[in-house]
Amino acid sequence: MVLMREEIGDVLRDFRLQKGRTLRQVAGEASVALGYLSEVERGQKEASSEILASVAEALDTPLSVILGEVSQRLAVVEDINLHVSVLPDTVPSGLISGYAPKLLATKA
Amino acid sequence: MVLMREEIGDVLRDFRLQKGRTLRQVAGEASVALGYLSEVERGQKEASSEILASVAEALDTPLSVILGEVSQRLAVVEDINLHVSVLPDTVPSGLISGYAPKLLATKA
Repeated sequence: MVLMREEIGDVLRDFRLQKGRTLRQVAGEASVALGYLSEVERGQKEASSEILASVAEALDTPLSVILGEVSQRLAVVEDINLHVSVLPDTVPSGLISGYAPKLLATKA
Repeated sequence: MVLMREEIGDVLRDFRLQKGRTLRQVAGEASVALGYLSEVERGQKEASSEILASVAEALDTPLSVILGEVSQRLAVVEDINLHVSVLPDTVPSGLISGYAPKLLATKA
């Protein structure tokens, strides 16, 4: 299963590093706890829409740009999953994350 | 403030209607409570990444496509806000949602 929060976290971190900002700086400007932002970047916490908007603003990056990047990265992952799924039986189905969503969802 | 969950809700509803599916059908396939999906569509609840993935699958639509559409709609709203913000003093700043995010965030 492709999880949006993991891609969002990666993209937020990449934009932050690209701008040479520290977690502390961005968290401070966005009025978000540092530990919380760190968990969001690692894909461990869902960021609410309000927090995401604040962090995007702190990064001087429109939310549409952040989500556009998330969408593109998801497309790559989904495309990979799609191609893996048409391989013969050599790949154990449990390893194909995008194609056992209900099974995996119960673990979350 | 532009809120991601409102755009996500609109996009999910539009994809559902475009496919001629009812809330009940999609909620059932995604194993999500009908009332919850309805609140997500109305932008009142944040959908977790797991639920979003399940709903996308129930709609037979890649998550990347859904978020791509969300990104495009956000871009339109952000562009409108940008243009409103460069108008002269005739527009009360409190009405320009994208440019008083901290103020508005306290109301949410």
